[in-house]
This record gives sequence, structure tokens and C-alpha cells, in this order.
Amino acid sequence: MNNYDWEKALYLSILDTPLAAWLSDFSVIIKDWKSRIHHAEQNKWEKQLKKFPRTEVTTQSFGDTVTIGSENDVSSNAQEHLRSVLKCYMPWRKGPFRLFDIDIDTEWRSDFKWQRIQHHIPDLKHKHVLDVGCGSGYHLFRMREAGANQILGIDPTTLFFYQFSIFKQYLRQENIHFLPVPLESLPATGAFDVVFCMGVLYHRHDPLTFLKMLKSQISKNGSLIIETLIIDGEPNEVLMPRERYAQMRNVYFIPSAEMLRLWLEKVGFKDVEMIEKNYTSTQEQRSTEWMTNHSLVDFLNPDNHKLTIEGYPAPLRATFVAST
Amino acid sequence: MNNYDWEKALYLSILDTPLAAWLSDFSVIIKDWKSRIHHAEQNKWEKQLKKFPRTEVTTQSFGDTVTIGSENDVSSNAQEHLRSVLKCYMPWRKGPFRLFDIDIDTEWRSDFKWQRIQHHIPDLKHKHVLDVGCGSGYHLFRMREAGANQILGIDPTTLFFYQFSIFKQYLRQENIHFLPVPLESLPATGAFDVVFCMGVLYHRHDPLTFLKMLKSQISKNGSLIIETLIIDGEPNEVLMPRERYAQMRNVYFIPSAEMLRLWLEKVGFKDVEMIEKNYTSTQEQRSTEWMTNHSLVDFLNPDNHKLTIEGYPAPLRATFVAST
Amino acid sequence: MNNYDWEKALYLSILDTPLAAWLSDFSVIIKDWKSRIHHAEQNKWEKQLKKFPRTEVTTQSFGDTVTIGSENDVSSNAQEHLRSVLKCYMPWRKGPFRLFDIDIDTEWRSDFKWQRIQHHIPDLKHKHVLDVGCGSGYHLFRMREAGANQILGIDPTTLFFYQFSIFKQYLRQENIHFLPVPLESLPATGAFDVVFCMGVLYHRHDPLTFLKMLKSQISKNGSLIIETLIIDGEPNEVLMPRERYAQMRNVYFIPSAEMLRLWLEKVGFKDVEMIEKNYTSTQEQRSTEWMTNHSLVDFLNPDNHKLTIEGYPAPLRATFVAST
Amino acid sequence: MNNYDWEKALYLSILDTPLAAWLSDFSVIIKDWKSRIHHAEQNKWEKQLKKFPRTEVTTQSFGDTVTIGSENDVSSNAQEHLRSVLKCYMPWRKGPFRLFDIDIDTEWRSDFKWQRIQHHIPDLKHKHVLDVGCGSGYHLFRMREAGANQILGIDPTTLFFYQFSIFKQYLRQENIHFLPVPLESLPATGAFDVVFCMGVLYHRHDPLTFLKMLKSQISKNGSLIIETLIIDGEPNEVLMPRERYAQMRNVYFIPSAEMLRLWLEKVGFKDVEMIEKNYTSTQEQRSTEWMTNHSLVDFLNPDNHKLTIEGYPAPLRATFVAST
Repeated sequence: MNNYDWEKALYLSILDTPLAAWLSDFSVIIKDWKSRIHHAEQNKWEKQLKKFPRTEVTTQSFGDTVTIGSENDVSSNAQEHLRSVLKCYMPWRKGPFRLFDIDIDTEWRSDFKWQRIQHHIPDLKHKHVLDVGCGSGYHLFRMREAGANQILGIDPTTLFFYQFSIFKQYLRQENIHFLPVPLESLPATGAFDVVFCMGVLYHRHDPLTFLKMLKSQISKNGSLIIETLIIDGEPNEVLMPRERYAQMRNVYFIPSAEMLRLWLEKVGFKDVEMIEKNYTSTQEQRSTEWMTNHSLVDFLNPDNHKLTIEGYPAPLRATFVAST
Repeated sequence: MNNYDWEKALYLSILDTPLAAWLSDFSVIIKDWKSRIHHAEQNKWEKQLKKFPRTEVTTQSFGDTVTIGSENDVSSNAQEHLRSVLKCYMPWRKGPFRLFDIDIDTEWRSDFKWQRIQHHIPDLKHKHVLDVGCGSGYHLFRMREAGANQILGIDPTTLFFYQFSIFKQYLRQENIHFLPVPLESLPATGAFDVVFCMGVLYHRHDPLTFLKMLKSQISKNGSLIIETLIIDGEPNEVLMPRERYAQMRNVYFIPSAEMLRLWLEKVGFKDVEMIEKNYTSTQEQRSTEWMTNHSLVDFLNPDNHKLTIEGYPAPLRATFVAST
Repeated sequence: MNNYDWEKALYLSILDTPLAAWLSDFSVIIKDWKSRIHHAEQNKWEKQLKKFPRTEVTTQSFGDTVTIGSENDVSSNAQEHLRSVLKCYMPWRKGPFRLFDIDIDTEWRSDFKWQRIQHHIPDLKHKHVLDVGCGSGYHLFRMREAGANQILGIDPTTLFFYQFSIFKQYLRQENIHFLPVPLESLPATGAFDVVFCMGVLYHRHDPLTFLKMLKSQISKNGSLIIETLIIDGEPNEVLMPRERYAQMRNVYFIPSAEMLRLWLEKVGFKDVEMIEKNYTSTQEQRSTEWMTNHSLVDFLNPDNHKLTIEGYPAPLRATFVAST
Repeated sequence: MNNYDWEKALYLSILDTPLAAWLSDFSVIIKDWKSRIHHAEQNKWEKQLKKFPRTEVTTQSFGDTVTIGSENDVSSNAQEHLRSVLKCYMPWRKGPFRLFDIDIDTEWRSDFKWQRIQHHIPDLKHKHVLDVGCGSGYHLFRMREAGANQILGIDPTTLFFYQFSIFKQYLRQENIHFLPVPLESLPATGAFDVVFCMGVLYHRHDPLTFLKMLKSQISKNGSLIIETLIIDGEPNEVLMPRERYAQMRNVYFIPSAEMLRLWLEKVGFKDVEMIEKNYTSTQEQRSTEWMTNHSLVDFLNPDNHKLTIEGYPAPLRATFVAST
């Protein structure tokens, strides 16, 4: 387990795949990333990572709760200590995870979303998959459960990279990797069978450019699964919050379903289909012991949960599948 | 007049202005531009440019018809020849111009637009002005008439650069310059008092990114004058043509006036004001001897000029002024 | 054997070594190399490479004659054909090789040189070795025979890369690699235990710069083995041929042994020792069936083999060992 | 005199010369130079520069003592203060200068060297001249006296740039410029009629590369004037000091005159001629009030001025002229 090197593991993973053609790009990206500090806490996170128990895990399962190891794999002292170390990586947003029988109850029940979409997305068996904006990587493990052969998650949030790294150190043999960079940093590989992008589009001020970039990652006859905020509205309608939306800054275009379909077609996607639509519930997104800040309930109008605190329609999210 | 060099003239022009800080960027841009051929006809245009009469012009005026020289400045043989040379630079879109008493009747009566806005825009006297998407440069001359001290137009269309160059060779002393590049190529100078951008925004698939780029060119307490297609619609409305719009490809977001205002504010502009709104008439945009392709009348529904041939609302254009 | 990929093999080889830190540099170098054609015959060489018999070799030995496979590994038809294919890769300079029992009698008996130096160089067992100017790679195999663990040869001559590739395709399991680039292209790795550089220095017009570059490849307490032309002369003496030397263009500094020692010390080497000195004989360098151009005998004064045809002292070569 | 900008002055100077083609390169070089601090004292030097008297100089002459202004141009208080400010720019190596009647007695009597060569070098009248390693710029002024039309000095030593800037601020109309960079930074302009390089070659560990770079600056039928240390020796001889030479570090190749001639011819110069040779005297190079460190007399063997303190032959300098 010592000296686990995620960079080398990624290279080894891609050497026999179409991604190998981009190895020089990946190596430049990683060299650049490693040359700078990206967050004030990064050194702490890096150091703590080395303090996790060095042990082999005897059990792992990537079901609704992504479960890695059991309490039997570590001493009870170690388990106790582990809980406090895991808290150093707060806030925990996407999950749930269970590590050595410690339950990490994340802000999001990301399993809910997976349950809603899993039977409507293309078969992932043996596929090469990219997840753009993968957060802690929860869905990467679900994609593995669904049979994907090679899985790459990217997310520029440094904390999420370290959250993922905690789990990955016990799963070295799994062909799941994480690059802590934004989509802009990747070359246009056209090498993935399936690209996921959930919860990102409304944060982009250039949605068409972003959709084009997603398309440039997908191979011929591949698929995009994209989830974003939408509004119930006419084909011509798009909501752009003046300041914040449900307290989030940096929210730009929230299109109607038809407008989003048009965007997807405009940049060249085919067979666009909405596979689920769902008002986010306060059961799915809420504060927990592992994410103690405000959460959805605080961002809705207390008198009318159909509106955000700013008076906009409450968060309605939909997932679309589209083909290249 | 021999060996007129627009590059040196531009450098001389900026050496004593805030733009001087960006001289290295400009020189790299121009070096790069000169290193490649941008259009199959470029060599022809370049060569023809050297065949224009070498003479001093005895008259010039930058009124509704931008007038340079008179027939007395050239022999009648030369004038005859000149007409056929000017036709090599067709299609002529923005004007009208009169060169040595030859009238160039362009597709657009760009003087109409100037008449509608000229009394509603900030005083240009002594100002440094940038015109993004300046076409043949017609409005650059009008800005000079209005007193601007230094005027730079940019437009990536190679033909327009050569159309402008025809006139500029007779106006070497005028502090008006043209860089044949898109806005993306410029560094964020923050050095212009006033930036114009007319007829460009709806061609961009990333309108917010583009508005930010425009803002990055404007100095503190400067102004943007932006003209674009809009729709008569609700604040939340934006039209995105599925394929073509009035036969134009590459038309993306056509917002309502309120949506455009919101965009401008979202990227940080203040005091946004719509100064004119106008359905384009077939008197303002039409085929002529100097632009013999189809024009507006062919792009409208023949039975209902309130609709484009594709069934969208007919072109409605508005101009906004906003401050930084 | 199909789809043998030397690039991936190199990456796999370095992933667990100090060179791994330079993987991004190597990948950029190779991407760049692959993006261009380097020689008019390159496509032919590349194509021919795919026509070699696809077979496993049952024997290999890296002694004085580097021997790969036997006639029993291929049909006699194939062997016949093979000889003519190998001739497409002429001239063969460094060897000798024996491939499927075809003897490639190269211009140089490079085994002579190896015999002179092999007992005077540092033990290569388990070492990481770089050979700068490795030609066809003959000595790379000898270094392997001597126990080196990882061996990289570099040489910018495209033909030599393909000569090496012929052998390498039958020796995929051997940790021997070839980068077809000059020393300038490598980053300063400081990662090799031993660096060889034989027959290069006199072709450099900047010998000190070159020695510094060699030093920058060697790890702490590592060794350089450098062979070059010298003159019998005083410490202050250096011969610089006015035009050609033994018909070679691009010969610059030919120092006395003491001058070379001073250069090595000047750039920071220690424990400089000359381990052999030898007038090149016409037995060691001569025309053969596999190199039909003129060779040494033609470059010497016919009446006095102590002089070159230009009147300079005949080629005297010496090998030095030095430490970092 | 306020806001004197050497960068703009340089651009203006080259806009109408063959150097104009390299303006983008110069602007990138200068932008890069300005983006960093090059010496711990640089800010002080920069600030002091603004404290020099703002006055017009009533006299200037570029004879043996380069003389700028007279005591009548400034108040006696100012003159007093000026002396102490000038001392902030010590050590003063090349001169002599006289500024507002303050004599700056520099370490080198650079006028001696000029006297030895001035009648043997090509006519500088109307020439474009480059001086590589120009120091404080003393010889730039002498070249102007000799009629050169445009003069550029380059030297990477930051102090020398500021010494030059002191004088240049009073000589804005003179077409003399200084770029504080090494020769490597310049593009190969081939644009200078005459290139000087005095006192640099022996500091280079790559003399042939350096001579090639010098050649790449010279136009067709242009001239090089190069001065360097030589030894009295045979054509094959070159002295390379083991450690220091006359206490200087970084001394590499000191060739015999014939060897230097060969180098010049080897890189393509023609008509090589030695125009002077001279053992440096302790009258020409010595400590003064303006350079209080050790000087030549301390670097020679006290018992035998024909040897350096290290036992090498004492400094013998020669100047060569060569043509392209």
C-alpha cells in the first residue's frame, strides 16, 4: 500500500486503451497540477492521507452505500482515530460511504439519484466512462458496480480529490481514477463510450461551449448523461438568477426542458431523451453530522417549499440521455 | 504613399497612449497574422491594393457618405479603372462610401443606424474607441467625425480589412486603425473609453463570455454601445433558432430586451439603457450593384414581412448603452 | 508481436524508476517526434518493419556478435527474403549482428572497442544506463550482457532507430529502449547511474556545453564513459580541422588527452582516467557488403597511414571514465 | 524629461529600419525583462534615477571623456548631491565620463582601447551598430562620435543598464539604445552593419556557438570587431585556466591568434585581420575612487608582471576585424 502513486496507476490504466494517445497530455496536466498548491488545507489533507491504517480490506461493495473494509480489518483504536481523521475532510457532500464500518452520512443521498437513472442509462458493461464533476467519486464506484471497465472522474475541487483518495488507497486494483482538473484542462479525446455530467451545467456561463466540450470527449456512437437544474417552462424560456439561486452563487442558465434539448441538438447530439425529472427533496439533500453547514431546507422559502428563498422556482432537476 | 505600413502606423499611434503597455501583444498578434494566408483571394487583394492611384486626396469628409478624394484627384482613365478594381473587393456590406467620386452603394445603409444612435451615445470627443466587428470600417470614420481621438476597429473577416485598407491609404494621417483579428485575440487592455459592438452578439454561442471580454477592454467609467438582434418577449425569454435565422447560420441566443439587460448586469455593467429599437427595413438592408447576393427581402416570409422565411419573428435590432 | 509499441514499452519501463518523474517530458518528446517525418525513406523503413517474420525467437545472445534467433525460427523462404529486407536498412555502421543466422557484417567491428573497454568500466550490474549516440544500438545489447537493468539509447539518426527496431521487435521482454532524439531534447534527469558517449564529442562545436549536458543526466556518484578523437599533444593543444577530417565534415575540437581531462574537470567531473587509447585500424573500420561506401582506408593518406588524406594526424581514439 | 521611456524610444528608433521586422521580438524581450527584478539593488537604482536634476544639458561631447552637461546646467547644491548619487551606482568599470563637470574616473581607461582601434575599423558613418557586452555604454557614445546612425548596446548586467540610463536621460534625442539582455535573447536579426564585441569571448564556454550568434546579427557585407584575450602561441594552442585567470572566474578558452582566426573562419567569417594586440597595462585598468575593489595590479604576480597571480601569461588582448 506504501507509496501508492495515483499518477502511475492512471498511466498504467490507459496504456492499452484509446486514451494512450493522450498520455503526454495527461502527464503535462498532472505535472502542472503537482507543481502548485491548490488549497490552504491541501498539505494537511496530503499528510493525513498517509496516516490511514495500512491494511488490506477484506470486503468491498459498491451498492447504495459504497462500502470499503470492515471493522475487523483495523484495530478498534484505529477505527476510533479514523473517525476523527475522516472529519478533517469535511464537508462531505456526495455519498453515502462506509469505511471500516464507519458510516459517512453525506449531505446528498446520491444513491437516490442513481436509483432514478440507473435503469434508463446505456449499459455500462465493459465501457470506458468519464464523469465530469464527479465530486468525491461516489458515482464512479456505482459505475464500476454497473460493469464499466475503465472509469475516470474529474473535478477541480481539491477536497473531493482527497476524499476520493482515501477510498482509492484501499482499492488500488480497481480501474477507477480521478484527475483533479476542470473539463477545460482535458484534450478533446473522443475516447469515452459514456460521459456523465451531473450538477454542473447551471454553474457554467457558457452552456453551449460546455456541451461542445462534453461532446468532444465522447467516441462515435457514444452517450452523454447530463443532469442539471431546469424550469417548468416554455421552449423559449430560460431562468437566469439575478444574484443567487437557492443561495448558490454562480448560477447562470436554467433552461426549460425543451430549451436544453435544443442546446443539445444545436451542438450535435442526437436522440435526446429526458429520463427523469425530480424536485429535490429535503430528504435527498440535507445537513448531517458530516456536512454541518446549511442545506436545502434553509435555501427554500420557509412558507412555500415550491420557491427558493430568493423567490425563484424551487430546484427541479432533470437527467437527459443523448447520443453522438 | 509608397510602402505605407499599417503595422508601424498602429505602433506609432499607441506609443503615447495607455495601449502602449500592450505593444508586445499587438506585435505578436500582427506577426502571427502576417505569417499565414487567411483567404484564397488575399494575395489578389493585397496586389490590387498597390494598383490604386498614388495621389494625395484634396477632399475628405466623414458624413453620412464617407467621402474620400474627388474625381479631380485622378485622371478620368484612372477613375474608370478604379471602379473595376473596387469591384474586386465585393461584396460591399457596410457603407456608403464615395471614393474619387465613385459611389459605393453598400448592402447596408449603415448611416441609418448611426443616425438612430448618434445623439444617444456618450460624447466621443478626444476618446479612445474600439469597434468590435467593425466590418469595412464605415463607423470608424463616423466616430472620427464625432471627435474620437484614437480609433481601433477589429474584425476577423479578411475582405473587410482590405476594403478598409483601400480608404486608409489615402488617410494616413488619421488616427484610425484596423486589426484583422477576433476579440479573443486581444489582450484584456482595459484601455478604451468607449467600446462599440454592433451586429455580433447573436453570432456568439457564449454571449456572457463575450460580454465579459468586451468589458475587459473598457477603462474605468467607460461605456459599451452594443447592438444586437432581440425579440419582443418576456424577461425570461430567449430565441434560439434551430437551424438558420433569416438564412444566417451561426445564430444562437436572441434574447428579449430584459434578458439582455440582465446579461449585461450579470457580467458587471451598470446603467444599462436601451437607446433604440428598430425592425430592419428592406430600405436599410438590400442588394445593390456592389452586393449582388440575396439580401433581407429574400430572407423574409414573402407573405408576411413580420416573419423570417423560417417562421421566426423578423429581425428586430436594439442598441444598448452600458457603463463600467 | 503485432502492434508492438515502443512508446508504451518505454513508459512501462520507467514507471517504477527515478525516470518516472520525467514521463511527461518523454511523452512530449515522443509525441513531437511522431508528428513529423524525419527522413525521406522513413515510411519505407516503417512499412518494412511490419514485414519481418512474426515468430518467437528460440535463441538470443549478446556476445561479440549480437545474435537473435536462428534459421530454425523461420522458413528458408523467409530467411532468403529477410536478407533483402535487411539490405533496405543500409548502410549498417555498428555491429556485428546475426539475425536468424544472417550475418550483418557492419562497417565497424564495435566488438573491438567493447573488448578494449569492458574490463575498465564500472560494473553495470543492476544499473540504469544511458548511451548517447548509440547508433544501431549494438552496445546497448552489450551493456545488457554486462548486467545493466535498464538501458536507454538515444541517437537522432532515423535509420539507426529503425535498425534497432528490427532487433527489438524480437526482444520485447528486454529492458532496452531507444529514443530517436539528440541529447538536447532530453530534460536534465540526473537519473542514470552510468552514461556512455562514444564517437560524438568531436562532432560538437560546443564541447563544454555538451559535457555539461552529459553530466546533467548522471546521478550522484555515477559515471561517464566517453570516447572521442584525441591528438598526441601538449596539455594546451587542440586540433581544429579547417574543413574536413578523414573526410568527415562537422569535426571541431580534437583535444590532447590532457586538454580533454581539463574539460571534464572544468565542468565538474572527478577521478578522470583514460582507460584506453588506440589508432583506429582498417580492420576495425572498413567497407563491407553491408556498408559499401568508402571507409577508413580511403580516408587515410595512401602513402602514410599515420596521416589522414587531408594531412592531419590519423584517427586516434581514447576512452575516459569520470565520476560525478 | 519627465516619464522618459527607453522602451518607446527604442521602438521609435527602429520603426523605419530593418530592425522593425523584429519589433515583436524586442517587445516580448522587454516585457519579460520588466516583469522581474534582476538585482537586489535594482529598485534603489530605479528610484535614484528619478532624483537626477531635471534640466536640459547645454553641452555634450563624445570624445575621450564622454561629457554631458556642465556645472552651469545645475545648481551647486544639486551638483554636490549628484556626486553622492552617482556613487550609488558603483562600481564604475568603463569610461571615463564627465557629467555636469563631475569626473567619473572608471576602472578602465576605455579611451585607450578606442584610440588603438579607431583608425582600423570600418567607417561607422550612417551605420547601424550593435555592441555586445557594452558595459556602461561608453563605447556607444564613441561610435556615435564616429558617425553611426543607430546604435544598440546589449549587456545583461543590470547595473550597467542603470549607469547608461543616467546619461541617456539627458540625451533623449540621440539614437543610442541599451537592451539589458544577453546575446542569446536576441533574435537572429542579420540587421546590423557592424557588430562590436569586446571583452566577452573568453567568458563563454562555447566560443564557436557565440561567434555564430554574433554572425547572425550582421547584415550581408557587414563587419565584426571582436576583442578578446589571446595567448602568444602556436596555431593549435589554446589556454584554458583550471580555476581562475587573473582572479576572474568563468574564463574558458584563451586561443592563440591563429586559433581565433580559424574559429572565425570556421563559422563563416572572411577577411579576418588582427588590428591591434596589447598587454593590458596597470595604467589602463586600475582601482579608482569610483571602483575601489582590487584591479589588475592585484591580479598579476607581484614579482613578474608578465604572469598572472595564478601563473598564467599576463592578459594579452587583441582585436580582430572580420567580414560576413
